[in-house]
Formats: sequence, structure tokens, C-alpha cells
Amino acid sequence: MIQYNIEALNTEKAEALQQKIDLKTKPLGSLGKLEEMAKHIGCIQNTLSPALKKPVIMVFAADHGIALDGVSPYPQEVTWQMVANFMNGGAAINVFAKQHDIDIRIIDAGVNYDFDKSSGVLNAKIAYGTKSYLNEPAMSTEEFEKAMKRGGDLVERIHSEGSNIIGFGEMGIANTSSAAVILHLLSNIELSACVGRGTGWDDEGLQRKYEILGRALSKYRGNNSAEEVLTYFGGFEIVMIAGAMLKAAELKMCIMVDGFIITSALLAASKMNPNVLDYCIFTHKSQEKGHQLMLDQLKAKPLLDMGMRLGEGTGAAVAFPLIQSAVNFLNEMASFDEAGVSNAD
Amino acid sequence: MIQYNIEALNTEKAEALQQKIDLKTKPLGSLGKLEEMAKHIGCIQNTLSPALKKPVIMVFAADHGIALDGVSPYPQEVTWQMVANFMNGGAAINVFAKQHDIDIRIIDAGVNYDFDKSSGVLNAKIAYGTKSYLNEPAMSTEEFEKAMKRGGDLVERIHSEGSNIIGFGEMGIANTSSAAVILHLLSNIELSACVGRGTGWDDEGLQRKYEILGRALSKYRGNNSAEEVLTYFGGFEIVMIAGAMLKAAELKMCIMVDGFIITSALLAASKMNPNVLDYCIFTHKSQEKGHQLMLDQLKAKPLLDMGMRLGEGTGAAVAFPLIQSAVNFLNEMASFDEAGVSNAD
Repeated sequence: MIQYNIEALNTEKAEALQQKIDLKTKPLGSLGKLEEMAKHIGCIQNTLSPALKKPVIMVFAADHGIALDGVSPYPQEVTWQMVANFMNGGAAINVFAKQHDIDIRIIDAGVNYDFDKSSGVLNAKIAYGTKSYLNEPAMSTEEFEKAMKRGGDLVERIHSEGSNIIGFGEMGIANTSSAAVILHLLSNIELSACVGRGTGWDDEGLQRKYEILGRALSKYRGNNSAEEVLTYFGGFEIVMIAGAMLKAAELKMCIMVDGFIITSALLAASKMNPNVLDYCIFTHKSQEKGHQLMLDQLKAKPLLDMGMRLGEGTGAAVAFPLIQSAVNFLNEMASFDEAGVSNAD
Repeated sequence: MIQYNIEALNTEKAEALQQKIDLKTKPLGSLGKLEEMAKHIGCIQNTLSPALKKPVIMVFAADHGIALDGVSPYPQEVTWQMVANFMNGGAAINVFAKQHDIDIRIIDAGVNYDFDKSSGVLNAKIAYGTKSYLNEPAMSTEEFEKAMKRGGDLVERIHSEGSNIIGFGEMGIANTSSAAVILHLLSNIELSACVGRGTGWDDEGLQRKYEILGRALSKYRGNNSAEEVLTYFGGFEIVMIAGAMLKAAELKMCIMVDGFIITSALLAASKMNPNVLDYCIFTHKSQEKGHQLMLDQLKAKPLLDMGMRLGEGTGAAVAFPLIQSAVNFLNEMASFDEAGVSNAD
């Protein structure tokens, strides 16, 4: 098992950061969450003048054996087709990443397809998709550990290129099923509250999804550790993201947390090492039903609530400018003294 | 009285816009509010390929006679000092506008100070501040009409320079008092629910502010028309913004609505011509207590809720990239057909 040496948030400069924020030419506290974020990022980077360098969103794609058992309205081939769409710049994440100058990396964590080497897809394939967890674990312990490590290694490379803020996205038909079961098992919330419409099931489809997952759970005899839950019900993308997050926190990067799937990876990662949460910025609340429950588990209040539920890291991408705004006001606004403005009586 | 010829939203292309949105490579409806906004902006511009051109935020500054009666913890001179801060680039609105390449225009609508011509402040001064509405109307009918017209004229000029999206900000010590009374009189909500902490009153200050406004209201004998309420209790910046919004809607510009003060101007403007609302994008919910009540009056659900209450148009500025994201996905994402991605069964 990999050990992650994640330091708790360094609050050495917290007070000085708060003072710097309070002396800016604005009523006390009037920038709300932007102020909290500025302080948080200052603590992560242990400086009064933080900077966001080379933002990256890593999009991990993988297939899920359970997709063939009817949990999703989309056919499994949509996973690789969407990866091709990412490479051609036609997906939502491409549009938003381009808008904000965020570098995106598309990673094949375990898609049931062979991408051409010239495609630009980063090959980290563990297998051609997981097995269906309807009857057996989705992956072996070796595959789980390999995926955790690969996720971390990829982040290490991005960090070494100078990035200090990273977000994660995913593509994998049926992965809301994995995320729902992870939530259920790691939080003890009843399954029906955790299972949502995913890409868009009607009531009947939702009921079928719920029953299939119930059947899968009835055969599971695990100990409910994060590792075991991920091995049995995970997707390769979810495991790789968990590993990536733990490494990013170890490297003191800011982690932009996206929606339902990504937060399920974080929920699992936080069971392995709760300090990972100290480096997280929760970017948005997904409309997928279980996401609010996950956020509650993590005591997280996200920046945005725009009814989005697309995945790919799109929530993180559209929220990025708000994070940048937090850093910018801290660095660029004048203080009362500098501006010659009278403070409150 | 100026007449505004504001057409109701043209929904001729609404269906075609919805179809274009639905065929993008994403689950149906999965971009939430971004989809609604894309459709809305497409209708405003009556095109399937809208564009945001030369975004501008106009910041109107003015002084309020009531400030000298103890409704604000800040001295009145902060108004002109903050205008100077805007001109020097040190305020929050400068930082966020620069971040998003939004042009800002700083307008002296009625500040109790003479700005140097070389300062760059746009001179639209009606007077050196309003009179205190503790005993008499804040402005005369002539001043009200002049302010309405100047606001519109300034927008017309910006529109003629090629801008099609405009936001409004304000600076004016004591202007949350005006906004609270406008809300109270135009919505029939009791005064205590409308009056908030403004720049940051403690309980005692809040109570004093409430009592002062109650005294002012006890002498008011108006008919509660928007025009009369603005004349008696308005600030020159609020009136100018109301006139600016009505003109912007007439010119079919997208209007980015900021927080408490700006929404009070819109509430009044919407009583003069309700079609103005068809052109509005509500950017954020202010933490100032009465703002949610105003939003309820206008049936508005804003994009952001970040605990901000700074004014200056900062809510509109930080929300701008989300509006841009809406337009971008509509124009740039591939459709299922274009990308060769299978749609749901």
C-alpha cells in the first residue's frame, strides 16, 4: 500500500493573511467566499501573495463492466467516442478549459478501446474496462494499487512542470453507479438516497439502476474500507483520481473538486488520509442527487450551484475564474492606507 | 417623462436554440443554468450564434444627504475617495474587470466633490449630493428627469461604440438606505425586513438606521409610483442606473444585474416598463439582507451566491465569465453528429 505524507494545512500565515484581506478598500468581509478562498490558498502556499500557476484539469476515462448490465441509457462505446471528442476539442470541457487557459490532459485509465498513438490520449490503461461488479469485484487488488500509483505519478509529472493547481474530470459510461455505491458504503446512507438519474434516466430507468445496484451489493462481503470499496465497485478512473488527489495534496497543490464522480473519489481518498481535504476547493454542487450528501459528509460548501451535471471536470473549469478572482484581489487591491480612503468609524 | 420603447423578448428563435443546445455532446440539460442563459442571450440577440461584444461596467457614484444623519458607519468623503481609488485601479471592481477584460467607466452622478478634469471621471453630476430625505425629497422632479436621461444617454454612447452587454455598479455612502426604502415602498414589505447592515453595522447601528428611515418615511406623503419614490428617496446614481437600464433594454443589450443597490434601481425601472426584465441576467445574490426579497419580487434566480456585498458592480464582474461560458458552449461545442458520438437509447 502506498503511503501519502500529507501535511495538515499550514496556518502559520493565516492571521497575517486575514489582516491583509481586512485592510483592503472594501467593507470588512464583503467579498464573502472570495475572502475565505484567498486565505485558504495563501495557507496552502504559505505566502501572503499566492499565485495560481499553470492550471491543469486531468480527465480520466475508463469503462465499467456494469454498463453492460443496463445501469446507463448510453451505450458503452460513448466512453471512447467522447474521448475522441475531447481530442478534437468538441466537448464542453474543451470549451471551458480553452476559455480560461486551463491545460487539459486526457488519460485512458481503462477504456474498452485502443486509441491510436497519434491521438494524443495519455495511455495509462489498466485494462479494457472493469469487470461487472454484479457478481465479482470490478478489479483485482493489484489493479487497484496500480491505478492508485499511476494517478499519483501523473500528478507528480504535472507538478514538476510547474503547475500548482489541479482539477479532475472523468468520462466513463455507468460511473455514477460506482459513485453512488461508494457514497452508500462509505457514509452508511441508504442506497436509494445515493442513486440518481445520472446522464438522465426517467423514473423507470432510475428504479432499474437502483435494483441492479442493490443486487450487486447483496453479494458483496467486504469490510467497507475505502480501498476495498474502490476495488470492488470502483472504476479505474475513480481509483486513479483518488491516487492523484492524495499525491496532489502531498505536493501541496490546490485541488479543484468537481461533481459527483470526482467527489466520490475524494470521499474515498479522505478515508485513506483525511488531510487531503485541507487542499481542496469545492467548485460546484452537481445536480446529481447524491452529490449534496457527499458534500455534507465532507462538510463542504461549494462555490457554484448552477444545476450542472455534465462531468468531464466542467464544474471545476467554469469555477476557475472565481478562484483566480480570490487570488487577484488579495494581490492587486489597494489597502485603505495605500488608497488614502477613510476606514469605518 | 421619457418614454422607453422596449420590445418584449423575441422568442422567434427559442425553439431552434433549444434544439441546438440539446444536440450538443452532453446529456440533455446537463449544463443547467448555462443552457438557460445561452437560450436567453440567443433570444435577446435573435440569433443561434450570439456573441458578447465589448462588455462594459458603468460605475455610478453619488452622495446622499442622509449620510450625514448617521445611517452609515463610513464618512461621506469615502465616496469621492473610492472614486479616486477606481481611477487609480486599486478597488475590487478594477481587479475583476481587468481579469475579464471588461471596460469600466466611472461616472460622477452627483458626488460631493470636484474631480479634476484630468482624473478621467466622467462628469454627469446633477448636484453635489442629494438632500437628506429626512425632511424633504432628495431631489427635485427636474433633477430626477435629468438623471434618468443622462443614464440613458451614457448607455447610448456605449452601445454606439459596439458594446452589447452592460453591467452597472455604484458607489455612494448611505445608498443601502435608499435601496431599502425603495424596496419597502415598491413591494409593500415591512421596513424592518428591508433594512440591512450595509457596509457593516452592528446591531445598534442597524437599529439606528432603521429608526432614521422610519422617521423619514413618516413624513413622506407620496403616491408610491416608482418615479416619485426615486425622486424622494433616491440617489442620483440609482436614478441614473434606472434610466441606463431602460435604455439598455430598448437597445436590446444584455443587462448584468449586480446586488442590492442595482436591483433597487431595476425594481423601480421595472415598474416604469416591465419589459426591461426580459434583458436582465441576474449575476449574484448579495448578502445584504433585503436582496433576496428584491430578487423574489422580480422572480429572479441569480447565478452566484458567494456571500458578497461589496457593490461597485463586483458581482457582475466576477460572474461575467459564466455568461461567457454559456455563449461559448453554444458556439463551440460539437453536436453528437459532428463528433460521431452515439446519443442516448
